[in-house]
Amino acid sequence: MAIITVIGSGAMGSAMSVPARTNGHTVRLVGTMLDVDIINHAKETGYHTGLKRTLPSGIEYFQLEELETALTDVDLIISGVSSFGVKWFASEIMPRLPKNIPVLSITKGMLNQSDGYMISFPKYYEGLYPDMDFLAVGGPCTSYELVDLDNTCVGICGNNPVSLEFCKDLLATSYYHINLTTDIEGFEFAVALKNAYAMAVTLALGLSLKDGDVLHYNSQAALFGQSVREMRKLLIMFGYNGDNLEYGVGDLYVTVFGGRTRKIGTLLGMGHNLEYALNELSGITLESVVIAERTSKAVLTFIDSGRAKKEDYPLLLHVYNIIANNAPVDIPWSEF
Amino acid sequence: MAIITVIGSGAMGSAMSVPARTNGHTVRLVGTMLDVDIINHAKETGYHTGLKRTLPSGIEYFQLEELETALTDVDLIISGVSSFGVKWFASEIMPRLPKNIPVLSITKGMLNQSDGYMISFPKYYEGLYPDMDFLAVGGPCTSYELVDLDNTCVGICGNNPVSLEFCKDLLATSYYHINLTTDIEGFEFAVALKNAYAMAVTLALGLSLKDGDVLHYNSQAALFGQSVREMRKLLIMFGYNGDNLEYGVGDLYVTVFGGRTRKIGTLLGMGHNLEYALNELSGITLESVVIAERTSKAVLTFIDSGRAKKEDYPLLLHVYNIIANNAPVDIPWSEF
Repeated sequence: MAIITVIGSGAMGSAMSVPARTNGHTVRLVGTMLDVDIINHAKETGYHTGLKRTLPSGIEYFQLEELETALTDVDLIISGVSSFGVKWFASEIMPRLPKNIPVLSITKGMLNQSDGYMISFPKYYEGLYPDMDFLAVGGPCTSYELVDLDNTCVGICGNNPVSLEFCKDLLATSYYHINLTTDIEGFEFAVALKNAYAMAVTLALGLSLKDGDVLHYNSQAALFGQSVREMRKLLIMFGYNGDNLEYGVGDLYVTVFGGRTRKIGTLLGMGHNLEYALNELSGITLESVVIAERTSKAVLTFIDSGRAKKEDYPLLLHVYNIIANNAPVDIPWSEF
Repeated sequence: MAIITVIGSGAMGSAMSVPARTNGHTVRLVGTMLDVDIINHAKETGYHTGLKRTLPSGIEYFQLEELETALTDVDLIISGVSSFGVKWFASEIMPRLPKNIPVLSITKGMLNQSDGYMISFPKYYEGLYPDMDFLAVGGPCTSYELVDLDNTCVGICGNNPVSLEFCKDLLATSYYHINLTTDIEGFEFAVALKNAYAMAVTLALGLSLKDGDVLHYNSQAALFGQSVREMRKLLIMFGYNGDNLEYGVGDLYVTVFGGRTRKIGTLLGMGHNLEYALNELSGITLESVVIAERTSKAVLTFIDSGRAKKEDYPLLLHVYNIIANNAPVDIPWSEF
C-alpha cells in the first residue's frame, strides 16, 4: 500500500481520496489556507462541507502548516488546487515537495502565451521545475459523483510511462477507470476547452426558459454539435491530433449538466448580463469564464496573425463578446 | 412560392411542413396507408394526433389514393417514411413521382451490403432510379421541437449543388438552420450511428436508477465520450473524413434526451431484457435497435476480414450482444 498526499481539499481534490481509499492506500488530505474550516470539520466528523458528503473512513487530515508531516515517506502527491491557485502552488508549495515524487494535478485550464499558443499546467510546472515529474488527470468527472462511486472514465497524461502506470495502479478501481496518454498538451487542451463551450451550450437552456418553462433539446444539440466542431478545429489549429477530443466531449457533456457553468449559461440565455449572473453565483469560483476568455484571446491572436479563420469559431467568439463586451445573447445560428 | 408535397405524415414528415409554411409555400401533406386517421383528424381540426400539436394553418391534407392530385405542379417532394417504409416507398411510390423533381428524404438509417459496407437511403434510391435527384436531411432535430419552433441546425446532403441550394432556399427559416454537404455517405452514416449509440449512452440512466432514484452524469458522460470515439473510428474505417461527425454528435445528444431510445436503454440498464423493453414500447417503431444491429453486423464483417480491430468497438459490440444474444448489461468500462 502506498502513501498519497492530496494538497488542496476542495471538492475534486478531496474526491480523489475516494478511489485511493478504496484501494487501501494511506490518504493524507491537506487543506490550503482557504480550506481551514473544511479540514477542521472533516477531521471531527468525516463530513466534507463542500461536497456535502461523508468521506471514506481512514483519511488523515492536515492543515497547511502540517504539510511537512503530511509529506513524510509519500509515494504520490496530488495537487488539488483550482486554476486560481496554480501560481501560488508553483511558488509556495512546489519548493517544499520532495523532488523525486510524481505530482498529479487535478487542475483544469491552460495559460496563454504571447504567440497565441496556450500551455498546460504540467508544462508550466515543468518549466519552473524541470527535474520534477508532473502528470494531470482530466476527463468527465464531477467530484460529488465520484464520491458516490458512479462509474467514471478519466485520462491521465504525463511524460513518463512508468509514472503513468504507477498512478493508474494506485488509483484505478472498479468504478474509476483510467486511460493513459503522453499527449499532455492535446489532452489538457481538449478538456480545458469544455469549460468555454459548456457555457455556450447552456445558453440554450436560458433561451428556452425565457420563452416558457420547457427545456428544448434541438437548440442544445445544435450548440453541442457546433461546440464539438469548433473544439476539433481548435485542436487541429494548435497542432494536436484529435485522439483526445473525446475526453473533452465527455467533459462537455457532464459540465452541461453540472452546477455552476450550467447556471451561468442559463442566466445569460435568459437575458441577464454577465455581472448579474456572476453576482448570482457570488463566492463561487468560475473557471469557465476565465477559460472561455483565455481560449478566445488565443484564437483572436491566431486570427489576427492570419493563422486562423474567424468564420471557424462563431460560437466561441460570441461567448467572448458576451464576456468581454457585455453583449446580449444572440446565437449566430446561420454561421454554424 | 413553391409547392412542396410531403409523402408520409408521421411525426417528422409532418413537422417538415412547419418551416415550409413559415416560408409561405403551398404544403400538401399526404398520409400513407398507416396514416389514414392522422390525415382525417388533421384535415378536420388541424391537430396532429402523433405530434400532439396543432400544425400551421394552410396545409392541404391528402390520403394516399389522392397522391397524383397532390403531385400536380410540385416543386419539391419530401419522403417522410421511416426506415421500415423505405423499400415500400422505393417500389410503390417512386414510380408514381415526376422524374425531374428533387426528392428530399427525412429517413434515418443505412442498409447493409455483403462486403460489410453500408449504403445510405439516397444511394439506395439512386441505384434503383439513376435519373432522379435524391437528397436527405439529417442532424439533431426532434419533430415536436421543430413544430415548437426551437432553433434547430440540420444538414442536407445531395449530389447536385443546385438542388441543395434549392432545398435550403425553400426550407431555411429564422429557427430552422441548414448546412449543405455533398458527402452523402459520410453524413448519412454519421447521423445513422447516433441511434445505435444513443441506446448505449442511456444504459447508464438505467444503471443509476437501479441503484437509487438519482441520475448520475459521470457514467453517462463516459459512455457519451466512448460513443463519439467509436463513431469517429467507424467513419474512418468506412473511408469517410470526420467533417460530418458533429451532426452525429448533436444527433446523439438530442436522442439521449428524447423519447423511445432513451426509454429502451433505461429499461435495459435497469436489468430488464430486450423482450421486456420492447414490450413496454409495444406498437412503437424502434429504429435504434435495427440500426445498432445493422452497424454491428457491418463492423463484425470488417473484423472477420481483418479490416477492423475488435478492441476499437467495445461499446457497440456490447450493445450488439444485448440485442442479439440477450446478454445482461455489463458495460466493458475497462476496455474504453
